[in-house]
Amino acid sequence: MDYVYAPGKNHLFVPGPVNIPEPVLRAMNRNNEDYRSPAIPAMTKTLLEDVKKIFKSTAGTTFLIPTTGTGAWESALTNTLSPGDRIVSFLIGQFSLLWIDQQQRLNFNVDVVESDWGQGANLDVLESKLASDGAHTIKAICIVHNETATGVTNDLSKVRFLLDKYKHPALLLVDGVSSICALDFRMDEWGVDVALTGSQKALSLPTGIGIICASPKALEASKNSKSVKVFFDWKDYLKFYKLGTYWPYTPSIQLLYGLRAALDLLFEEGLDNVIARHSRLGKATRLAVEAWGLKNCTQKEEWFSDTVTAVLVPSYIDSSEIVRRAWKRYNLSLGLGLNKVAGKVFRIGHLGNLNELQLLGCLAGVEMILKDVGYPVKLGSGVAAASAYLQNNIPLIPSRI
Amino acid sequence: MDYVYAPGKNHLFVPGPVNIPEPVLRAMNRNNEDYRSPAIPAMTKTLLEDVKKIFKSTAGTTFLIPTTGTGAWESALTNTLSPGDRIVSFLIGQFSLLWIDQQQRLNFNVDVVESDWGQGANLDVLESKLASDGAHTIKAICIVHNETATGVTNDLSKVRFLLDKYKHPALLLVDGVSSICALDFRMDEWGVDVALTGSQKALSLPTGIGIICASPKALEASKNSKSVKVFFDWKDYLKFYKLGTYWPYTPSIQLLYGLRAALDLLFEEGLDNVIARHSRLGKATRLAVEAWGLKNCTQKEEWFSDTVTAVLVPSYIDSSEIVRRAWKRYNLSLGLGLNKVAGKVFRIGHLGNLNELQLLGCLAGVEMILKDVGYPVKLGSGVAAASAYLQNNIPLIPSRI
Amino acid sequence: MDYVYAPGKNHLFVPGPVNIPEPVLRAMNRNNEDYRSPAIPAMTKTLLEDVKKIFKSTAGTTFLIPTTGTGAWESALTNTLSPGDRIVSFLIGQFSLLWIDQQQRLNFNVDVVESDWGQGANLDVLESKLASDGAHTIKAICIVHNETATGVTNDLSKVRFLLDKYKHPALLLVDGVSSICALDFRMDEWGVDVALTGSQKALSLPTGIGIICASPKALEASKNSKSVKVFFDWKDYLKFYKLGTYWPYTPSIQLLYGLRAALDLLFEEGLDNVIARHSRLGKATRLAVEAWGLKNCTQKEEWFSDTVTAVLVPSYIDSSEIVRRAWKRYNLSLGLGLNKVAGKVFRIGHLGNLNELQLLGCLAGVEMILKDVGYPVKLGSGVAAASAYLQNNIPLIPSRI
Amino acid sequence: MDYVYAPGKNHLFVPGPVNIPEPVLRAMNRNNEDYRSPAIPAMTKTLLEDVKKIFKSTAGTTFLIPTTGTGAWESALTNTLSPGDRIVSFLIGQFSLLWIDQQQRLNFNVDVVESDWGQGANLDVLESKLASDGAHTIKAICIVHNETATGVTNDLSKVRFLLDKYKHPALLLVDGVSSICALDFRMDEWGVDVALTGSQKALSLPTGIGIICASPKALEASKNSKSVKVFFDWKDYLKFYKLGTYWPYTPSIQLLYGLRAALDLLFEEGLDNVIARHSRLGKATRLAVEAWGLKNCTQKEEWFSDTVTAVLVPSYIDSSEIVRRAWKRYNLSLGLGLNKVAGKVFRIGHLGNLNELQLLGCLAGVEMILKDVGYPVKLGSGVAAASAYLQNNIPLIPSRI
Repeated sequence: MDYVYAPGKNHLFVPGPVNIPEPVLRAMNRNNEDYRSPAIPAMTKTLLEDVKKIFKSTAGTTFLIPTTGTGAWESALTNTLSPGDRIVSFLIGQFSLLWIDQQQRLNFNVDVVESDWGQGANLDVLESKLASDGAHTIKAICIVHNETATGVTNDLSKVRFLLDKYKHPALLLVDGVSSICALDFRMDEWGVDVALTGSQKALSLPTGIGIICASPKALEASKNSKSVKVFFDWKDYLKFYKLGTYWPYTPSIQLLYGLRAALDLLFEEGLDNVIARHSRLGKATRLAVEAWGLKNCTQKEEWFSDTVTAVLVPSYIDSSEIVRRAWKRYNLSLGLGLNKVAGKVFRIGHLGNLNELQLLGCLAGVEMILKDVGYPVKLGSGVAAASAYLQNNIPLIPSRI
Repeated sequence: MDYVYAPGKNHLFVPGPVNIPEPVLRAMNRNNEDYRSPAIPAMTKTLLEDVKKIFKSTAGTTFLIPTTGTGAWESALTNTLSPGDRIVSFLIGQFSLLWIDQQQRLNFNVDVVESDWGQGANLDVLESKLASDGAHTIKAICIVHNETATGVTNDLSKVRFLLDKYKHPALLLVDGVSSICALDFRMDEWGVDVALTGSQKALSLPTGIGIICASPKALEASKNSKSVKVFFDWKDYLKFYKLGTYWPYTPSIQLLYGLRAALDLLFEEGLDNVIARHSRLGKATRLAVEAWGLKNCTQKEEWFSDTVTAVLVPSYIDSSEIVRRAWKRYNLSLGLGLNKVAGKVFRIGHLGNLNELQLLGCLAGVEMILKDVGYPVKLGSGVAAASAYLQNNIPLIPSRI
Repeated sequence: MDYVYAPGKNHLFVPGPVNIPEPVLRAMNRNNEDYRSPAIPAMTKTLLEDVKKIFKSTAGTTFLIPTTGTGAWESALTNTLSPGDRIVSFLIGQFSLLWIDQQQRLNFNVDVVESDWGQGANLDVLESKLASDGAHTIKAICIVHNETATGVTNDLSKVRFLLDKYKHPALLLVDGVSSICALDFRMDEWGVDVALTGSQKALSLPTGIGIICASPKALEASKNSKSVKVFFDWKDYLKFYKLGTYWPYTPSIQLLYGLRAALDLLFEEGLDNVIARHSRLGKATRLAVEAWGLKNCTQKEEWFSDTVTAVLVPSYIDSSEIVRRAWKRYNLSLGLGLNKVAGKVFRIGHLGNLNELQLLGCLAGVEMILKDVGYPVKLGSGVAAASAYLQNNIPLIPSRI
Repeated sequence: MDYVYAPGKNHLFVPGPVNIPEPVLRAMNRNNEDYRSPAIPAMTKTLLEDVKKIFKSTAGTTFLIPTTGTGAWESALTNTLSPGDRIVSFLIGQFSLLWIDQQQRLNFNVDVVESDWGQGANLDVLESKLASDGAHTIKAICIVHNETATGVTNDLSKVRFLLDKYKHPALLLVDGVSSICALDFRMDEWGVDVALTGSQKALSLPTGIGIICASPKALEASKNSKSVKVFFDWKDYLKFYKLGTYWPYTPSIQLLYGLRAALDLLFEEGLDNVIARHSRLGKATRLAVEAWGLKNCTQKEEWFSDTVTAVLVPSYIDSSEIVRRAWKRYNLSLGLGLNKVAGKVFRIGHLGNLNELQLLGCLAGVEMILKDVGYPVKLGSGVAAASAYLQNNIPLIPSRI
């Protein structure tokens, strides 16, 4: 049973959930198991250890929480902060907006630093706030590494630089939902205190695990947090880690095996090769957009995202119509423009287990749709621009040399 | 890859997660999809409607939250109550204990009504509390329908009777984790305000959906709740229900299709037939226990559970050794004794997508293990007692007549 | 476990085995079953009936033999003919060559009518043979509907026309391996006596079922055939059809369920829509080839195949290198040139469960590879030509309107 | 979609097709691949080598033919013999009967040596035939190692002993369909010339591969065979083995990966442990039958089969009714009595990926059915007898110690 069958593969280019590779689907195709047997803890131990690698952390402690990215956000906040704590948060698009909304509803005192949608976090404002906060009233900086709504990647190393410059002890909490496993991310080197992602993003699994890495400093902070929580409480996890049974409540057996397979594939390809592949896919997409004569929603090159590209359409076109036609005529799933940019942008997600020819098929589809909706695109132009770049840059597949 | 392969099927008789039927595994064996396309909301709509049937509710509103039973508990409490609210809660085993722990950590004011482990909720104490609460300071009654640790089923109709007798407006919040879809449960008839279960229990899915049904009164109460929550907030769901997009954050596509298949199977068998099947399996198990000369942890017949049987072992045997041997020698997964009854009981879960011959295989295994650990069981005695009953009571499989 | 993993989807554009749609993979993801229970015969009955539709036959009798296309060939020949029988057979490429080799090894007396590889069957020669065969020594005409090695489609209606013109009673045996379910094929209307295909071709299943449709005349002929056979003997099937148990030996349960699902998808899309989709994909491919400045191996438009395109490369390029690079660098699987055209052509299979954007991804890949191997292609040119045609011709997906 | 859904697992105890283990189902859950890429030949090479181990052969050459056991029979015969060749063949049940029927229809000159159904091959007759065949007119001895219809295992070492005793050069062709991978089988030691099995038997795969091992002597004989064949011709395979591409026609990609997984599981368990497990299951079944007061169709202990037990029922019971009720009431699949023993026996298949508790569940089911049909069985008696034996003999699962 499918709800609306169409011949051929669905071309899934939303920025999440993304394509699941066959070996991962296979690994998850299994019956339930007793999670209290010796097998599941033994596997969990390998997962908690190996998942640190996707954060480039050795010092961190990881949590695999049966939840979504929204739950992972809540876990990061409620374990490290107390109601009333002052935090600085950057509003640059729909997902940072939702996180800020959560921060406010959880009763934190949020300094919202807003930018135009299409711009990165305003780090000048951050600097002035840090400079003037000799009293260290700011308890945390909350920042989205990659804003999925606009395709903007923030420079986390600069945030760390500023914190260090002012010797500011604020925690650095990072939403890496659409960056980790795809963009260059360095938990330990950048002094990130909590980083998080969701299984359905670049890890290319189904939705269902909120993956969190906490620095020793974050763990220390969690001991004093007065936020009310139970389901998301790290303490319960840590207690079961010590017991060696690992789970305070029932995990998804299927997702654990899926995560094992997903990590194995990542490590087989090599995390740096994965990041390089995303870089190629991002660059190729942007070259196509340029060739079509369209603008990237992201206003400066320094913020260009290698996992999602938000494409601005001319004002006489409703970008939602592009997304609708993509699905109705071409079995192509593109991302809608959200909130402020609804109707103005459509998004091409190019993250996860994806290769170049898949992307080129998508780009060829976008060209036809643009023509469908009345934009005078030259068919083949985007594909030509993208493949001119790709043909020079795709490496041989290592296992096939 | 399996962590510890053994030939043949694993005999999964823990009281959750339970066996997933093949049609459900098949339904979940799929790539991700864009959850914002028209397909997923259309399917979600059918799910929210059909899932009501497992609660026997027409008036309720359902929520499919990407979480576990623990999260479903938290959702039930934080949406309907405010910090400091007085609630009455029954401590009769490990899972009621954990729920009470959560209630306390969420800052509710809990009247804990404790019973011996093996007994049901003490409803006499409830009655006296209700009788003396003319001021209606009690805001909610929290009760586990079926305590999974001891195999005790509480009589919810009696709780409703008492509330009505004293015209008490307290909300009735029910943990139906190991009862719903297996035991007789009547949301509307019994005036339950919030009932909840987890996908990995009698619904026979993987872990990952906390399934909640809220009465109109519970929804009304949720408008005034002052508990802090975001991820678990029903308001976000209700907002998206109105929009027709249904999801405030990314659901698991696989679990949605799996739930669709699981409900289809339930309805094909007929919910009443499913309940009758659980009744047969429970009765057969208890007859075997009796034939072995062992005692049921559950102290009176009125509390006998048709989804899990906790079996008391003689004091010279460590029940954990039974569970260990089951797994190591017979590829049989039994439930451990938890907390107060650790070492004293082992548990046979007989819920979910399970038939009589599966159970008899398990019972034959338990007999051999009992002999392994030095208990003088007569091999075949339990199987004989169970099958004498079953042979008289198993109906023909309707689809095969 | 994969033998040589590469990130993203494999782009499978060999002319068989082809991509299996997810609903079919799901249907086959199942344990074995007793094939003598009432369930399998009941399902088989629907399959034997429904599979006639893909042949556009109502008069025919169908056989689902656990074998490959080569076995289906053998079944067609040995059931209808006797050793020494004279048959006319057309050699136009590798697969017709292999069939002729089989015919000769089975001791038939074969008039081989050869054409250049790239041309269709020489029906003028057929006509003169029929004209001069007043004695009806020719017992069968064997013809490949679509020669997979060269991408040549023969005109079967003309063969029928000639047989009728000369009132010749020869049987018409047709290899429809790479045509049936993809090209216009009309068993009854064209008076085909035996038609056959393999499950791994346009039906988009795994290899394993040789699917045969026999006309009443072919069945009649089978009564007198003196060819030695047991495994392939239709009589055994017919005996079990009568008994209602259907299977003379054990079928693949998985393939039966897979076939059920594959037929359901075909009928949901509509067989004529499936054929129209293949026509679009074929046309688009040929336009791309033309835009690249390359030649189609097929020498005349009347023979152009809508399921596979064999592309001639300049003499300074080894087409095998194109196929190798496709796999090693782009995770793209193209078809090799076989035998006489080895090194001279590569093949793009565009049959089965495939859509337009998948094809455009493949074409974009071929462009890059052509550049890799030193052919001065203009990147984007083929995609542009193909999509100019497609954008005007792709219908909305009916289920999504 | 299932044709006739029933709750819980189907208890599959027909002697084939048998239960597929989950890791094998997972391995087969995959899209098609180009079988001409380097990956499939590389994997095939490991399969052809490793599959020899299940025959206990190092000298043999293996063939993985896309067919069933019936096709494997035909392959064994037509590659090694010529029409008119004299062969000795033993008729002891339905499957040996069917093989003999094939031998006759393929025009061999068959000396049929018949025994009562329930007895083994009459080797005294064989001896006298060999003794009197100084002229070596007998070209082959054809023998079924394990007759699936009656549960009779023949002593192959004695056949070899007789051939050696009379220095007779006849080929020894063995149907190992229901023995190989389950019973002790020693190709090289016993001088078997062709041995064969089917993937759906003890290897626990779907139907679809006829697996053949040919001795050097059989290969030599194949050079002179005059039997007509193409699909089953070993020469085509050998030609492609030399080329390193391995496949004369399209294999099932899914079955190749499945076979890889099945062999990996066999070797992980250890072939001798697998055989010991079958020995336990066979013994336990026979003890149950005895406890029920029923007779084994197999008349002497020396012929008892460890893969299938045919149980004689009293004359007032129709054994087909037992099989029907098993399926209709208990979701249990038992084997029918075939041909001469139709209505007189039902069969319990205990081969393949199966463990002891699965068998005990089946035995408990059979007891209830016996009672259903009016046989005065003592419920639990068979289970008690079987488990008394098993409890003393089941080893710990090595991976779980």
